[in-house]
Amino acid sequence: MQIDVNADVGESFGQWTLGDDAAMLQLVTSANVACGFHAGDPSTARRTCRAAAAAGVAIGAHVGYRDLQGFGRRALDVDTDDLADDVLYQIGALTAIARGEGVEVSYVKPHGALYNRIAHDPVQAEAVLAGVVAAGDLAVVGPPGSVVLRLADLRGIRKVREGFADRAYMSDGTLVPRSEPGSVLHDPAAVADRVLRMARENTVIAADGTVVPLEVDTVCVHGDSPGAVALARAIRDRLADNAIDIRPHAA
Amino acid sequence: MQIDVNADVGESFGQWTLGDDAAMLQLVTSANVACGFHAGDPSTARRTCRAAAAAGVAIGAHVGYRDLQGFGRRALDVDTDDLADDVLYQIGALTAIARGEGVEVSYVKPHGALYNRIAHDPVQAEAVLAGVVAAGDLAVVGPPGSVVLRLADLRGIRKVREGFADRAYMSDGTLVPRSEPGSVLHDPAAVADRVLRMARENTVIAADGTVVPLEVDTVCVHGDSPGAVALARAIRDRLADNAIDIRPHAA
Amino acid sequence: MQIDVNADVGESFGQWTLGDDAAMLQLVTSANVACGFHAGDPSTARRTCRAAAAAGVAIGAHVGYRDLQGFGRRALDVDTDDLADDVLYQIGALTAIARGEGVEVSYVKPHGALYNRIAHDPVQAEAVLAGVVAAGDLAVVGPPGSVVLRLADLRGIRKVREGFADRAYMSDGTLVPRSEPGSVLHDPAAVADRVLRMARENTVIAADGTVVPLEVDTVCVHGDSPGAVALARAIRDRLADNAIDIRPHAA
Amino acid sequence: MQIDVNADVGESFGQWTLGDDAAMLQLVTSANVACGFHAGDPSTARRTCRAAAAAGVAIGAHVGYRDLQGFGRRALDVDTDDLADDVLYQIGALTAIARGEGVEVSYVKPHGALYNRIAHDPVQAEAVLAGVVAAGDLAVVGPPGSVVLRLADLRGIRKVREGFADRAYMSDGTLVPRSEPGSVLHDPAAVADRVLRMARENTVIAADGTVVPLEVDTVCVHGDSPGAVALARAIRDRLADNAIDIRPHAA
Repeated sequence: MQIDVNADVGESFGQWTLGDDAAMLQLVTSANVACGFHAGDPSTARRTCRAAAAAGVAIGAHVGYRDLQGFGRRALDVDTDDLADDVLYQIGALTAIARGEGVEVSYVKPHGALYNRIAHDPVQAEAVLAGVVAAGDLAVVGPPGSVVLRLADLRGIRKVREGFADRAYMSDGTLVPRSEPGSVLHDPAAVADRVLRMARENTVIAADGTVVPLEVDTVCVHGDSPGAVALARAIRDRLADNAIDIRPHAA
Repeated sequence: MQIDVNADVGESFGQWTLGDDAAMLQLVTSANVACGFHAGDPSTARRTCRAAAAAGVAIGAHVGYRDLQGFGRRALDVDTDDLADDVLYQIGALTAIARGEGVEVSYVKPHGALYNRIAHDPVQAEAVLAGVVAAGDLAVVGPPGSVVLRLADLRGIRKVREGFADRAYMSDGTLVPRSEPGSVLHDPAAVADRVLRMARENTVIAADGTVVPLEVDTVCVHGDSPGAVALARAIRDRLADNAIDIRPHAA
Repeated sequence: MQIDVNADVGESFGQWTLGDDAAMLQLVTSANVACGFHAGDPSTARRTCRAAAAAGVAIGAHVGYRDLQGFGRRALDVDTDDLADDVLYQIGALTAIARGEGVEVSYVKPHGALYNRIAHDPVQAEAVLAGVVAAGDLAVVGPPGSVVLRLADLRGIRKVREGFADRAYMSDGTLVPRSEPGSVLHDPAAVADRVLRMARENTVIAADGTVVPLEVDTVCVHGDSPGAVALARAIRDRLADNAIDIRPHAA
Repeated sequence: MQIDVNADVGESFGQWTLGDDAAMLQLVTSANVACGFHAGDPSTARRTCRAAAAAGVAIGAHVGYRDLQGFGRRALDVDTDDLADDVLYQIGALTAIARGEGVEVSYVKPHGALYNRIAHDPVQAEAVLAGVVAAGDLAVVGPPGSVVLRLADLRGIRKVREGFADRAYMSDGTLVPRSEPGSVLHDPAAVADRVLRMARENTVIAADGTVVPLEVDTVCVHGDSPGAVALARAIRDRLADNAIDIRPHAA
């Protein structure tokens, strides 16, 4: 049995820092590196790829809407041609940066509002996949059963199904919106339990108590929350204690 | 005998258009495609690479300072690490876009204030070259005898020496500053004569009448000046009439 | 009888120019000046305010989403607090620029996707109005009967009802989407007829031939379409020939 | 005897936070609020003005080069017309935001590379002052004896002479460059001693031990250094213990 643990890193921008990337890169197996549209800049990306390479962590292109002020968390009605090219541009930029550090980008994870949009919108999802395909042989990360992953299947793109370690789920397998109370979990032990259940039983216990099927290849730990490092460590320990192999989904 | 003719293209941005790229791409052999920092955007770059590929024109990454408002024409004191990574990021982004259209980026031409700076500043020149080297096997364009080309020689980077078709030269081989009267030439016949002389005799007649040695591999025609297309056509015809081969410097 | 004719101006950005502002400012009575978020920059705004002042044209703040690449034409889910502050910031910046030229900003016209959004979305409409109110005593421009103008009424903000000279209308008084054939009119005589009808009879003939009530205080001529100047001149002449007074809505 | 203590605040940007503004606003008498070009955004500015107003702290427009990635710390060769308008735009934007919170902007403090440039460059200094004058009756902050303050005198602009609490000085009254060892002081007691000396004796002890005249109206405490709050508290206590009145320079 195996699972991948991923986190968003490289989200600093110029003078502004965000998250404890050094600590997170010791705990995860895949690093979603910001590409400069929603966060990150070329030097931040370079340092992040270097640290990821040193830690033996797989690198993904964390592509987003072009919106630094909104951190890519605001829905943006980009034309499909523009979106495909925005995605391709970001992947290409990070690929060059990563190769400068001797490593490869192996997957693409859309960020924030873009991630949410293409979970259900086939038009923007197709645009993102067009950008991914043009960039080469890359996997794409999304929620199990999402429109983007179903379309990835049709196009022959390797898909990576993602669960969220610290987010509450509804009984239909979607996330409880962040605006709802209890949508984000903070207790490391409870979060570690959830991840173990995802890895071993392919289920999650929804907010209403029902057991919901959730087959995932990777689990996301949010790097910018205060207790992120403690959560990641708890998850890692719990999985190791239960003989679950933690390794990059690409491996 | 042979020479390359290059022009800046892909400098539109979003809703704003600049230059007659379609016409220029029929007349030049190398296209300097803006990479999004001083001008251009992913979709503009895609369309430009497609048109360049269709026209059989070589593609260069036209990298600049990150300054859309100033069009990359304002000197900016970027730290060397940041500059190397900014250059690498831009090359990588354009490379992915170009490959999406089935073509390769074969050289790098720094733009505007960056071009001028690294002609004499070894610190920023080294930073640019570090970005170029990290991106792979690419040539770099600069003025003959410039610091950046001398350093490129030392690093084993293929250098491309550039002359300007429509700019007046001083007797020391440098350009008459744009602020001076007569610094820019507009007469197609006179400009074509100059280019022919550069190609055949490796000299240019300076503003003071002296004949100055100027060995160049490529000649730049500015794409954003009103008569750019007429100039490029006059140059092309003059060279053809004199049996000078017009072909990409990379070929 | 009187009406105002407005156009978007000051939409150049750095090196990139857009529209024939000099000509338009001789033909309209109100100028919507871009504030730097979707288009424009401080120096462009300064030159535009100077030209508007010289022409005796009223100045409005043309506020938009922060999206230069998309020219403010892409819907963006901005939080209401952020949106109110973005609007206030833009109005304040333009106000200072205008006062530097000895003139005042007298109204606010939201641009592009923001204009469309607040025609029906009360949440973003309230946010825009909060920004307008904080900036002082300014009128706000919108479509007749729109949510934003109804809310402006409730808040005691002076409203300016706007018609479009060169856009086809549906029988419910809304615009035919730009994606539909025939949505944009190009014939100066036909456009001038429509504006005269709006001014004199408060109606418009919809695409299906029905006569639709449309009470407007101002008519917009799009400044960035190729025939914009010819359209504006035809409108001006037609109104003058029919003794309709063309004057700023604020006057 | 009296002196003003100022700090840079409002330098967060979107999702990224910087400095402990809440604490600093309890300790200083003047707040330099970022205007969105080098740092800050409209909502950050709004919150910062609200907090400054609540704390009874004077508000200054902290204007900078348009360079978020470089945090305004990189020299940029802006044309004088553009620079004047960039400054005016920023002041106007912040003025509207501040008035939305019921307070006024009373002075302008250029930031980072712009601050350094206009200390000696009369061309950019004149441009900044042109923007300040166009914005109304505002004071301008700079180093004692600097070109910008001498030109401010000539133009009849109120000048505010600034010392740095935590920076080492050379015997000619200029700062030891940050790249030198010992250029930044960290010991609260030593820093408080220096400020007391500036306030009471109008001198500073240079790095080489000489006593240098330094007449200042305000003292800057850098808000983004780790011990900033402790430094500001030590300064405040030391001044109070010695019966030096701490009040805004504008008062």
